[in-house]
Amino acid sequence: MAAPVALIQGASRGLGLAFCKHILKNKSPAVVIATCRNPDGASELKALSAVHAGRVTLLGLDVDQEQDIRSVSEVVSQRFGRLDLLVNSSALLHPSGKGETSLRDVSAQGVISTLTTNTVGPLVMAKYFAPLLQKGGGGFGQQPEDKSKHHSGIIVNITAKVGSIGDNGLGGWYSYRMSKAALNMATRNLSIELGRGKSKVLCVSLHPGTVNTDLSRPYHKNVPKDKLFSTEHSVNCLMSIIDTLNISRTGKAYSWDGAELPW
Amino acid sequence: MAAPVALIQGASRGLGLAFCKHILKNKSPAVVIATCRNPDGASELKALSAVHAGRVTLLGLDVDQEQDIRSVSEVVSQRFGRLDLLVNSSALLHPSGKGETSLRDVSAQGVISTLTTNTVGPLVMAKYFAPLLQKGGGGFGQQPEDKSKHHSGIIVNITAKVGSIGDNGLGGWYSYRMSKAALNMATRNLSIELGRGKSKVLCVSLHPGTVNTDLSRPYHKNVPKDKLFSTEHSVNCLMSIIDTLNISRTGKAYSWDGAELPW
Ligand SMILES: NC(=O)c1ccc[n+]([C@@H]2O[C@H](COP(=O)([O-])OP(=O)(O)OC[C@H]3O[C@@H](n4cnc5c(N)ncnc54)[C@H](OP(=O)(O)O)[C@@H]3O)[C@@H](O)[C@H]2O)c1
Ligand SMILES: NC(=O)c1ccc[n+]([C@@H]2O[C@H](COP(=O)([O-])OP(=O)(O)OC[C@H]3O[C@@H](n4cnc5c(N)ncnc54)[C@H](OP(=O)(O)O)[C@@H]3O)[C@@H](O)[C@H]2O)c1
Repeated sequence: MAAPVALIQGASRGLGLAFCKHILKNKSPAVVIATCRNPDGASELKALSAVHAGRVTLLGLDVDQEQDIRSVSEVVSQRFGRLDLLVNSSALLHPSGKGETSLRDVSAQGVISTLTTNTVGPLVMAKYFAPLLQKGGGGFGQQPEDKSKHHSGIIVNITAKVGSIGDNGLGGWYSYRMSKAALNMATRNLSIELGRGKSKVLCVSLHPGTVNTDLSRPYHKNVPKDKLFSTEHSVNCLMSIIDTLNISRTGKAYSWDGAELPW
Repeated sequence: MAAPVALIQGASRGLGLAFCKHILKNKSPAVVIATCRNPDGASELKALSAVHAGRVTLLGLDVDQEQDIRSVSEVVSQRFGRLDLLVNSSALLHPSGKGETSLRDVSAQGVISTLTTNTVGPLVMAKYFAPLLQKGGGGFGQQPEDKSKHHSGIIVNITAKVGSIGDNGLGGWYSYRMSKAALNMATRNLSIELGRGKSKVLCVSLHPGTVNTDLSRPYHKNVPKDKLFSTEHSVNCLMSIIDTLNISRTGKAYSWDGAELPW
């Protein structure tokens, strides 16, 4: 069987970078396509690429630009011809770096920018990579005995618990919450459309916990130390979930501990 | 007590127009502020205004333009100084007029346009009109005996059943479904932020059923005749729900028949 191919979108920092490291370290011979806005400045990815010679392909992709997504999908199609795993990791809390604490902080442009990167980007990724995932070898997740239920590929949209409408007891963070609720709808829709055919592609939303990254930095001081995960720990948890995914678990949102999240 | 003031956003056609008619006919002496993109071309609204002299204020507002929303809020503030009910009715299915049947039909620009009008617009309306709703007289809904639980105003976001993630069994209509899921998150967030203070503003999402309007026109042929509501019937149902709203029912999504919708 050919080596599994994983594409990590938003790989320059944070969880995206940790997904690349994890797969290179623990999922050999799987190869990684790492995309980010500025590959030239992505020193950690370049270093990984040097260490894991031949297993890393670094490509420039701004998820706000449909043209970038189309171009990268063409490159991946030519070089690999298929895909086993797509992780959409990129996101922002808000262009200001801080979630809105009240309506006063809401601006149309802030909401639109956040939705564009966090929601529209992952969906457009799915559009262009679905054909490649349908040609995947099912190299990630768990295949059931019944061959008619095998999957060829997996899409993981990184969501957030604050994107659960039912779980929302605190309010605030309008743009980010709305972007993740809409992303969860995209996950659900993708699971239906891509779960139908002979070549099944799973799609789930995963919540990584509260993780020590730039995105959550303004709030770290409010988080008890044992609740602030390292990116390594969070990705370990998320990969354990991915390892057990099969078609019966598609179209849902799961937390880092495996619990299903309410919509 | 001063006459209740209702603002209907997206009043040129369809359900928005029917809300104006209903309130003018059944809720006298309530007055209506009707907003739409092109008031000069809104012949039905102009006719209503002539029939109900002094009870209709017609103002131009493109919900995609934060500046329009701010300007109208300033006019309303000067002329009325308060608001009892805000109905966000405007929406589109997709810029093409048809919901996406599959990923092939998805484009970043189509999703962004739909989210801008259906989701960002209503939230930005809430931002600028919340202060006026907090000064409202509670002229719509039902006030409980306990005065500490009285509300001053109500925000109604017109959602759609297809915007329920949990109820989504068919897929498709990516942009529209995502826009309404995100709108439901906005409703939830608004209910929390505006339910806190002394002047309480309720916020709910309401699903009007499948209604005979331009928005649903491409699909009318698939709808059994008794399931395709007239705008009058739908607004009758929705107003019966609004008539019974109080603070204990805020932050939820209800269908035309009063049933709570899952997120
Ligand atoms: N950290 C947490 O506590 C937490 C909690 C719940 C959910 N999440 C989710 O976890 C995921 C990863 O976040 P993180 O914590 O790892 O954040 P992070 O360290 O701030 O990383 C964000 C990543 O997104 C990329 N990005 C932003 N805009 C982009 C664009 N237009 N095109 C391509 N890439 C773009 C950034 O790339 P550049 O380097 O080019 O800026 C960066 O790689 C996100 O979906 C986030 O919502 C995080
Ligand atoms: N009809 C149904 O079966 C159905 C089912 C579920 C939910 N809904 C919801 O019900 C609500 C009303 O829809 P409808 O069926 O009455 O649709 P409609 O007859 O097509 O009316 C749409 C309205 O939205 C306005 N609009 C569109 N873009 C706008 C913008 N940028 N700024 C201001 N106004 C804008 C239109 O104004 P112009 O005249 O200027 O174009 C028009 O008044 C929507 O939220 C829709 O999602 C409808």
